[in-house]
Amino acid sequence: MNRYEELAAKIEDDIARGVLSPGDKLPSVRETGRREKASPATVVEAYELLKERKLIEARERSGFYVASSSVPLLDIAKSAPAFVKPVSLDADDLISALRQATYNPRIFPFGTATPLPMFFPVKAVNRCIAQVLRDEPATVSEYRFPPGANDLRKSLARRYSGYGVKVSADALVTTSGAIDAIGLALSAVASKGDVVAVETPGYFGILQLVRSLGYTILEIPLDPEAGLTPERLREAWKKSGGKIKALVTVPNFANPLGTVISDEHKKALVDLAHQYGLTIIEDDIYGDLAFDGSRPRPLKAFDAHDGVILCGSFAKTISPALRVGFACSKTHAPTITLHKAARASGVSALAEDALTLYLQSGHYERHLRNIRRDYHTLISQYTHAILKSFPAGTRVSKPAGGFILWVQLPGEMDSRLLQAKALEKNISIASGAVFSLSHRDYASYIRINCAIPWNSQSQRALARLAQTVEGMATGGKQG
Amino acid sequence: MNRYEELAAKIEDDIARGVLSPGDKLPSVRETGRREKASPATVVEAYELLKERKLIEARERSGFYVASSSVPLLDIAKSAPAFVKPVSLDADDLISALRQATYNPRIFPFGTATPLPMFFPVKAVNRCIAQVLRDEPATVSEYRFPPGANDLRKSLARRYSGYGVKVSADALVTTSGAIDAIGLALSAVASKGDVVAVETPGYFGILQLVRSLGYTILEIPLDPEAGLTPERLREAWKKSGGKIKALVTVPNFANPLGTVISDEHKKALVDLAHQYGLTIIEDDIYGDLAFDGSRPRPLKAFDAHDGVILCGSFAKTISPALRVGFACSKTHAPTITLHKAARASGVSALAEDALTLYLQSGHYERHLRNIRRDYHTLISQYTHAILKSFPAGTRVSKPAGGFILWVQLPGEMDSRLLQAKALEKNISIASGAVFSLSHRDYASYIRINCAIPWNSQSQRALARLAQTVEGMATGGKQG
Repeated sequence: MNRYEELAAKIEDDIARGVLSPGDKLPSVRETGRREKASPATVVEAYELLKERKLIEARERSGFYVASSSVPLLDIAKSAPAFVKPVSLDADDLISALRQATYNPRIFPFGTATPLPMFFPVKAVNRCIAQVLRDEPATVSEYRFPPGANDLRKSLARRYSGYGVKVSADALVTTSGAIDAIGLALSAVASKGDVVAVETPGYFGILQLVRSLGYTILEIPLDPEAGLTPERLREAWKKSGGKIKALVTVPNFANPLGTVISDEHKKALVDLAHQYGLTIIEDDIYGDLAFDGSRPRPLKAFDAHDGVILCGSFAKTISPALRVGFACSKTHAPTITLHKAARASGVSALAEDALTLYLQSGHYERHLRNIRRDYHTLISQYTHAILKSFPAGTRVSKPAGGFILWVQLPGEMDSRLLQAKALEKNISIASGAVFSLSHRDYASYIRINCAIPWNSQSQRALARLAQTVEGMATGGKQG
Repeated sequence: MNRYEELAAKIEDDIARGVLSPGDKLPSVRETGRREKASPATVVEAYELLKERKLIEARERSGFYVASSSVPLLDIAKSAPAFVKPVSLDADDLISALRQATYNPRIFPFGTATPLPMFFPVKAVNRCIAQVLRDEPATVSEYRFPPGANDLRKSLARRYSGYGVKVSADALVTTSGAIDAIGLALSAVASKGDVVAVETPGYFGILQLVRSLGYTILEIPLDPEAGLTPERLREAWKKSGGKIKALVTVPNFANPLGTVISDEHKKALVDLAHQYGLTIIEDDIYGDLAFDGSRPRPLKAFDAHDGVILCGSFAKTISPALRVGFACSKTHAPTITLHKAARASGVSALAEDALTLYLQSGHYERHLRNIRRDYHTLISQYTHAILKSFPAGTRVSKPAGGFILWVQLPGEMDSRLLQAKALEKNISIASGAVFSLSHRDYASYIRINCAIPWNSQSQRALARLAQTVEGMATGGKQG
């Protein structure tokens, strides 16, 4: 092969692998020559060869471009439905398909617990980002090492002080979201192989995290109305032989059940944990979303001995893209700070400062009033529609906050199959199977994201889902 | 205690702990009443009590504010010098003091490897962020689940294709910076307790990461000119009894030595690793910063068997605050994707899209040309100044890229003490002791960040540092 043929083959390879796409401009002859250590004449010959093969085309006074005619278009929107289809009924695969579906605008997003953009204060957040860029343009050039921005941590301490949590800013460490905070909190109190208790049914993201960090998982079944109870923690403690090192819980508006632990139980749980010497890691990510406008107290508010690490973020209420969360415990803040510094050099200075501005603006309380009211209405609308259109015997949770419903399908229906079938109809739902390690326990449940306007589009999507369920129910009886 | 006295005590407590600061506005009477479940009359009485005690003050038609007179000011800039002083000569403590010093504008930043804002394309990056906000305002409401934005991964694949790395976008996973990428890569190939080899002297952030993840660390000494050599890897392999699972290396412009591994050695190292069955995790974070404008190839360019996980970010060249990095390996991308999803729900959509725009704008190559030239000049200026002003016998590294110098002080000087003493004079430097586990090996070295303009201010700071070194040298002889 000549040198120019070699070069042409290399570029052809880049096009085939999608490194260069149709319409992409090729580097200049000089640039390619420099990179490939080839003479301009060689590059020109290579380009001419590719042009003859119709792989690239010349545009007058502009240069060479990858031809759009000869290469199959790689359009995400088009390729995504095939892409997101779970290749098996394995839980990781279902979760991955679920998450990938959020990329695809053609898939109806009942699956992930992500409100649609209209439920986020997009304009106000963007204004805060713009203000940081304007007032402190150099923010993008900053490292923001843990424990994170002082103003933000002060703001968070003040906010939680209003919910009965007595902490100062130095108990707080900012993190890359709530899951990151929970992972850092776990690393601070438990070693690989230690027993970590989680709730069941419980958010699959927490299950994945605890598993990814190498802990032994013990599931504590939630009471469908009372959530995590002291009695159930006592039982789990016995069952573990007194070996639970940490407990991860979502005390307020649990995911997917929607339960809130009563204040009495919260106090008892914190006392029990202290007695057992186990650390509670609480995820307060839904705490601001009570329908009645009340603010249920975090477990941390009942914590006299600093045995609770309070974690959270504003990804469900302000912006998932800021990726700023926090972990809070005076005792553990130094260790969490060290781990955070060791694992990711801190959080984005721009995101921290924009979030601080937003929290200080006073907009958040107004915004919360609006979305709480919206979610209350939506939860009620979706509940009625599901009970009306799904097969008889379907049961639906009654959350007092948040924006998700936990739906029990009648009979022995396998919701993993339903998730796959619904996706074929461009509807994403989360199978109950992913909310526990024993994937069978909740296989007849699905979780539905209701932070989606109740309009003709969502009504049709829900109707299609109901038909799919109905079809499976009938099929199941036949099979 | 009456109810209003209780409430007043609570607010007083918030002020004492700094949750409420001088000048902060107190919530309205109605808001406080709602939060505390107290009547408006009770709140008014509580506020009056605090006013009498001069803890808060009323401003006409505006409400109540925390008084500025009665509470000591908590000024970061003022309190920081005491705050950052290392409390011991322990490495973690020295590193933490180093990082905290970057918060303090009064401390001269020779310590961290962070260029000053003028060496980042601040305006262009801010324009890209603004463009994302304008064109796709809802980006802030998006989760961006791993493996991350398709366009960004394609852009990275194309860029690395130009450096001889044959990968397509699906081999790439975006991460929260390079250290996050290295941690995820390690998790994909090694289990807790496994032996992970690192370079010595080597970046303390990598040491902290590997330790934080619970691996057994084996240090491979670098050749001061050739960097990591196949011979040294062979020796380390023997020494470990054939147990090294992964090797973390900075092949291009190592931190702190500045060495570049030759292409011949790169190929031999990749072949050796393949033969041994160990995975190389390469950190390419300084690769774009060659003084002569060449682009040294990553190890991954010599990797026929996908035995190298290429990691990197643009934190040293575009923006540390975007917090977007990447890990690249076709074999390991699915596992890295799973771990990233499990540990942090992905990277900021806003940051990913802004970085994509910036990389596509063509501005980066221009910017690189400028900073490479600047750093070349600065490295030479600082080198001359150090050799001229430091005690005789001082030796300085000769990097071919990057922006840091590795300085060997004469005699038996303990640079940990020097770091503490320099900080008392508001100068941050990094003691060589933090660049290896055996903190003694490089205790007579310091690392100097040269991405700081060479002007009267930096000249004075360097002179003060030289005096401190001189003082210690003399003191050392006496003691």
